[in-house]
Amino acid sequence: MAERCVQGLKQQKASTEQIEEEVAKLLKLKAQLGPDERKQKFVLKTPKGTRDYSPQQMAVREKVFDVIISCFKRHGAEITDTPVFELKETLTGKYGEDSKLIYDLKDQGGELLSLCYDLTVPFARYLAMNKLTNIKPYHIAKVYWCDNPAMTRGQYREFYQCYFDIAGQFDPMITDAECLEIMSEILRSLQIGDFLVKVNDRHILDGMFAICCVPDSKFRTICSSYTGVIYEAPLGVGNVAAEGRYDGLVGMFDPKGCKVPCVGLSIGVERIFSIVEQRLEATEEKVRTTETQVLAASAQKKLLEERLKLVSELWNAGIKAELLYKKNAKLQNQLQYCEEAGIPLVAIIGEQELKDGVIKLRSVASREEVDVPREDLTFYYEYFTGNHRQKWLGITPFFHRRSWGLSLCSRDRA
Amino acid sequence: MAERCVQGLKQQKASTEQIEEEVAKLLKLKAQLGPDERKQKFVLKTPKGTRDYSPQQMAVREKVFDVIISCFKRHGAEITDTPVFELKETLTGKYGEDSKLIYDLKDQGGELLSLCYDLTVPFARYLAMNKLTNIKPYHIAKVYWCDNPAMTRGQYREFYQCYFDIAGQFDPMITDAECLEIMSEILRSLQIGDFLVKVNDRHILDGMFAICCVPDSKFRTICSSYTGVIYEAPLGVGNVAAEGRYDGLVGMFDPKGCKVPCVGLSIGVERIFSIVEQRLEATEEKVRTTETQVLAASAQKKLLEERLKLVSELWNAGIKAELLYKKNAKLQNQLQYCEEAGIPLVAIIGEQELKDGVIKLRSVASREEVDVPREDLTFYYEYFTGNHRQKWLGITPFFHRRSWGLSLCSRDRA
Repeated sequence: MAERCVQGLKQQKASTEQIEEEVAKLLKLKAQLGPDERKQKFVLKTPKGTRDYSPQQMAVREKVFDVIISCFKRHGAEITDTPVFELKETLTGKYGEDSKLIYDLKDQGGELLSLCYDLTVPFARYLAMNKLTNIKPYHIAKVYWCDNPAMTRGQYREFYQCYFDIAGQFDPMITDAECLEIMSEILRSLQIGDFLVKVNDRHILDGMFAICCVPDSKFRTICSSYTGVIYEAPLGVGNVAAEGRYDGLVGMFDPKGCKVPCVGLSIGVERIFSIVEQRLEATEEKVRTTETQVLAASAQKKLLEERLKLVSELWNAGIKAELLYKKNAKLQNQLQYCEEAGIPLVAIIGEQELKDGVIKLRSVASREEVDVPREDLTFYYEYFTGNHRQKWLGITPFFHRRSWGLSLCSRDRA
Repeated sequence: MAERCVQGLKQQKASTEQIEEEVAKLLKLKAQLGPDERKQKFVLKTPKGTRDYSPQQMAVREKVFDVIISCFKRHGAEITDTPVFELKETLTGKYGEDSKLIYDLKDQGGELLSLCYDLTVPFARYLAMNKLTNIKPYHIAKVYWCDNPAMTRGQYREFYQCYFDIAGQFDPMITDAECLEIMSEILRSLQIGDFLVKVNDRHILDGMFAICCVPDSKFRTICSSYTGVIYEAPLGVGNVAAEGRYDGLVGMFDPKGCKVPCVGLSIGVERIFSIVEQRLEATEEKVRTTETQVLAASAQKKLLEERLKLVSELWNAGIKAELLYKKNAKLQNQLQYCEEAGIPLVAIIGEQELKDGVIKLRSVASREEVDVPREDLTFYYEYFTGNHRQKWLGITPFFHRRSWGLSLCSRDRA
């Protein structure tokens, strides 16, 4: 009632005093009513600018990180990690006026802390603190920007960053060349489209500025925009990676100002996730969120214990397997679960199979079935799913199709 | 001067007033001097109760997580993730008086946020918010406790938690049994010693309490201590894992109070890391921090371009390879690098090899060398390192020795 009254007054262009009087009445009435018991006990939301990752989203992230990390390891990289927060002064030293974008922790009687804003500053602090002068690490972690992100365009306050660095005093250009190679390998493996590499060299710019009569004092201001290497992929979408030198940063943290030359690359993984997710949505391709290869099923009811024995045998053989958590599961429901979850094989046990000492292996795709001796189950599993006999039982489509739109490089994971 | 004066007064057991007077003088003088320019620009430290992870520590963490995640995937688990912080009210709802252990974020004009204290509450919030009633996820992330940890005993303010849950309405005991199986598989695979599983059942406790004449109203208070399953491993060291049901938690977040039955397990990964690290320290075993298999080396100086070509061929074949970032690298230094980094093979190119179209493959362990046709380099690499000819060139010790003290289960990673 009072609410409508206020709305009405606003429409009538009533005076501010009148409206305020009605609002006060409304609040007083509300207070008399007491807390609204129908309201839920908690506000069910993630903090502004953040989100949960569903199994589907995590599956995409995992595959993308697999490609990236495989490449880093192929190039002899180590992995390091630093805390999610740093002393505030460590972070603000670099950013200066940008520090309003930093999430501060509440002063709870200790140090003044802030959530990391990027991974370069913690890495430089780590090198200086441990007097490391020669290291080739990668570092993947979430970082935090307290700004107003355009979430509809895939920007968030919590997001992943992915860095690879080569720190040390080496002969010129060799490490820079390897960074170029790494980025090209990663973008080729991800197959997100053609890409364009824009390489910049300070000497070329210096020459251009000299011809244009730019005074020396202005060189640095102009050069601070995007010096280094930028990768644009797919063409037209924007930058997905960048590369550059930051030879001076570690010295900022060192008491004696000792410099450690660094070249590093940063991969815009959030943009890559978006590209892959949009492509999946467009093609309506289904992402598998589990890697289960076999469902242990029973042909008749009342065979829970036998199913448990069978699934244990599969687990002990290192085979990814599941069973339905029902005492009396119908075969039809078990087969339907495989269809929904994308599980390619069913190992079926029934009264007849128990008598004969066999397991019925069924291909979900081709619906073909074959009885195999139970003691040789692992052998036959390998045989039917292995590289040499891929075509058997129509299993090929499951193990080899690119079911989520990315043809991933898995050459070095065997 | 003033400092020495204060020290002198202390030694002379001067009165508190005298000392305070001198300290005040000292501070005044210091203020006049202005900031000390010789001091380093930043305090080089991680926040209290946190630490950086070196490549050695990360290598241990990666291997332990590999074992755990392989097992979760073998059982058909999906992966989920939630933000590092939640609305403060979401977290305090469960903990009540423990909320002093929670890190709050500074009020920067938005929502009141806190860093996550464990992963159970965010998971329950995620289920309730998305009305999910049937999911089997795992969740590994760092959580934050703002307490005074005993860092000498491996306790920190930032540490990993590792959860696996089965949420849904299923027939009784099947999911509980699978959780038992998962924990046993993981502890067996980690080979951290014999372990003892303590299973508790509420019904047994109820019976005991009834016999002891404990009034019904006190049952819940008593039962809250650690009901469920506890894993103690290695025997005598303490608990490394726990398991239990939390059927009521999701309902706390649901507006209608809809319950989702949940059984979950939590692995004390930080304690497992400590056990493994202590063992490595005791045995002085070296942890490899890279996975590099081949160093592309040159027999003579001035062959940088040829080394770059060779290493590119290896990378393109999916082989983990490195080269020294020196224009003129001595063979001796290249071989020494392999010894230090644990790289098992060297692919050597020299003027003679270039003429003959071959590459010299050398085993770092046995120092044996063999020339192989360059176009078949990948074939020979596979041949020498493959399962069938492991003993060739003394390569076996490198690819198969358990060089870091854990014999890891890698059955399902092929």
